[in-house]
Amino acid sequence: MATIDDILSAIDADQAAALDRLFAFLSIPSISAVPAHFPDCERAADWLVAQLGELGFEAAKHPTEGRPMVVGDIKASRRDAPHVLFYGHYDVQPVDPLNLWRNPPFEPKLEAGPQGERIVARGASDDKGQLMTFLEACRAFKQFGAPPCQVTALFEGEEETGSPSLPAFLTKNAKALKADIALICDTSMWGQSTPAITTSLRGIVSEEVVLTGANRDLHSGLYGGMAVNPIHALSQILGTLHDDTGAVAVPGFYEGVEDPPQDVLDQWNELDFDAVAFLRDVGLTTPAGERDRTPLEQLWSRPTCDVNGIVGGYTGAGTKTVLPAKASAKISFRLVGKQNPERVAQAFRSFVTSRLPPDVKAEFIGHAGSPAISVPTKNQALRLARRALEAEWGKPAALVGSGGSIPIVGSFKRELAMDSLLVGFAHDDDQIHSPNEKYERTSFHKGARSWARILAALAA
Amino acid sequence: MATIDDILSAIDADQAAALDRLFAFLSIPSISAVPAHFPDCERAADWLVAQLGELGFEAAKHPTEGRPMVVGDIKASRRDAPHVLFYGHYDVQPVDPLNLWRNPPFEPKLEAGPQGERIVARGASDDKGQLMTFLEACRAFKQFGAPPCQVTALFEGEEETGSPSLPAFLTKNAKALKADIALICDTSMWGQSTPAITTSLRGIVSEEVVLTGANRDLHSGLYGGMAVNPIHALSQILGTLHDDTGAVAVPGFYEGVEDPPQDVLDQWNELDFDAVAFLRDVGLTTPAGERDRTPLEQLWSRPTCDVNGIVGGYTGAGTKTVLPAKASAKISFRLVGKQNPERVAQAFRSFVTSRLPPDVKAEFIGHAGSPAISVPTKNQALRLARRALEAEWGKPAALVGSGGSIPIVGSFKRELAMDSLLVGFAHDDDQIHSPNEKYERTSFHKGARSWARILAALAA
Repeated sequence: MATIDDILSAIDADQAAALDRLFAFLSIPSISAVPAHFPDCERAADWLVAQLGELGFEAAKHPTEGRPMVVGDIKASRRDAPHVLFYGHYDVQPVDPLNLWRNPPFEPKLEAGPQGERIVARGASDDKGQLMTFLEACRAFKQFGAPPCQVTALFEGEEETGSPSLPAFLTKNAKALKADIALICDTSMWGQSTPAITTSLRGIVSEEVVLTGANRDLHSGLYGGMAVNPIHALSQILGTLHDDTGAVAVPGFYEGVEDPPQDVLDQWNELDFDAVAFLRDVGLTTPAGERDRTPLEQLWSRPTCDVNGIVGGYTGAGTKTVLPAKASAKISFRLVGKQNPERVAQAFRSFVTSRLPPDVKAEFIGHAGSPAISVPTKNQALRLARRALEAEWGKPAALVGSGGSIPIVGSFKRELAMDSLLVGFAHDDDQIHSPNEKYERTSFHKGARSWARILAALAA
Repeated sequence: MATIDDILSAIDADQAAALDRLFAFLSIPSISAVPAHFPDCERAADWLVAQLGELGFEAAKHPTEGRPMVVGDIKASRRDAPHVLFYGHYDVQPVDPLNLWRNPPFEPKLEAGPQGERIVARGASDDKGQLMTFLEACRAFKQFGAPPCQVTALFEGEEETGSPSLPAFLTKNAKALKADIALICDTSMWGQSTPAITTSLRGIVSEEVVLTGANRDLHSGLYGGMAVNPIHALSQILGTLHDDTGAVAVPGFYEGVEDPPQDVLDQWNELDFDAVAFLRDVGLTTPAGERDRTPLEQLWSRPTCDVNGIVGGYTGAGTKTVLPAKASAKISFRLVGKQNPERVAQAFRSFVTSRLPPDVKAEFIGHAGSPAISVPTKNQALRLARRALEAEWGKPAALVGSGGSIPIVGSFKRELAMDSLLVGFAHDDDQIHSPNEKYERTSFHKGARSWARILAALAA
């Protein structure tokens, strides 16, 4: 039987081919938010089915009302081995503004970076590169037989659009998907070489609001001064979403917000987070959140409201003296504690409609929301994984929070009564959701090695 | 020698061919705000040079730093006849949102409308259709010899972008362009069948502001709550441009604002403006300007501030959890009285910069401005034109103000010490600057007849 060193050596020896596989995956522009890319989402799903087939999984694509799910299964080398469900997503974020990319986003490139070579492409880090670390670990086990755990792989194509089809799919396929634990590779390390396990995640709810004034665009000279301007109304409303202390001013918004337990806060303080360096890296100097909260609280345990996009009137080159009929904005809220996504969305809608001037109408488009998540920090799998990560990286794995949202964690708990283990190898400077997204080659390589160690540890 | 009736009959007989000519002109997408359309602006200028040539003008295209000028000259039938300068512009507004057009904007069509047939295309009213009414009058005179006045035609291609090249061109060509009076056909009638002469115009100044926060787009989960959001800053600033009474809140903005003389206000009150109908036509019910002003004051004699466009972050389909690096807006101010465009622009910039939160920087892009204009209401040419219009339309011509801006009127006064006569045949519902811009066939036909009568009257 192969030792863990055999498996790790196999991963090391296969790096060039592993990179080719990842590049092929990254070349598929599987943007789930853009209907024109729905066929590419299908291609990405097909590609994963083929990969799983190569690795000895029984795998298939499953249609949903949105993008398809990919599910694959492989038996463990031992009958009494634990059963893990590995989850990842093959869909990626939109790529605009395209002009800021150094290379086309779906033509992956290796570039030299301060930490060594990096893989640059949309999805390199979120989540194709991370997902492939797990499959590369499975590939190494395949050379010597089967993996040490029974593995079910579940890949979705709607993570970036709120996973609308996932809860129903989990319910319908509960028997096939229920495992001892879910493994998710969609989070970050703590600093350049310190591995991390994420134990809390913010929730999210998104709203789109479209304000309409006149029944058509008007000439700002002939109507200006007398006709209502929906951009003004939208600015006035969005401009009062936060108060002077940085708090969200929507009545009822903070209902259900809780502070983390003292031991968690204590551990966060020990992490020695360098807020100045964190902000400096993106060209900023001053924490802009709630004034009475520490930076890590602002990021991990406090709810937020951010306008993600706004548009109205003429936005081309030069000037146009138009008084527009419409203005719209996309807003998302990060949630913590027991905040309820539906109630937050409703509170926002009331906030807007109660502030509309005469003749301005509001339409709302809601998007799927998910509450915040906390992962138990004292279970056996977490302890084993933490030790495996320390063996690979030479440093204890930090237990961290995340400001992002991975709604699947809540779905696994609710639909399948299954805890999740969140281990990822991304970095804060990976520019996920931004131009020139990257994934460190070290993350890709040592990430695969980490999963090999974790699977072996869970089965030991 | 031909009588005025001969000329009018010639215009009537030539309507079909006149429409073909206008359609050819409207087919040229001469959008001056969009660099990709600069070659089309050249084509439109060449087309006008050819037209003027057909009409017996000596005409040429004159290069400027921007779009070219077209100048043409023709002698009068009598040596002692007055000399008029006719001004129009061949450039048009951008066409977005394109999806709201019933037909492609540069494929002119005749449509049935409540007032009879209408010509639908970008520029049909502003200003190609209006400009052509004058050339069609000249064409009728050509059948019988020369026009009754000496005519210099001046057509520019930058009216929709603030006429940056015009002042220098007027100064340089003052001798060739100086006439007894300038005739301008770029304004509206008063109601469906009441002609109008416009005697006051608002000025304008435009500013573009770009706010920048982080050095790149950020993930709203990983940074939200701690990183500043420039859309929030922009909303907060734009949301306070107006106070609760509808007045502009920029300090110093109202410097130089004057109320019109009482006799002008009296005449406006006699016009019996139906504000309810005016707003109802565009789907509105409530005047949104300064509360203590009448609707006509809001439109004609009060200054305004309108955001013409705003954009930032993700504006495509679906959601994107981005915390954007930039947000920008285009703002224009309509000016009255002695308001100074440069000072208003400066006051706006100070307003913005004094309200920026930490880490947000503002860049400004200024666009050419022009002060408000009043035309003397007691000169001889205006009296003659008023009588000629009454003969054509069977109703006295109203003397009206306009909320729009025609900076050329100020330039003629300043550079050439020349008064202007503003006669136009547009209607408030022509949807200029909007999708489905139209010009009534009646306006086109009777507009040409009106100019024939005015030229004859001025020479009598």
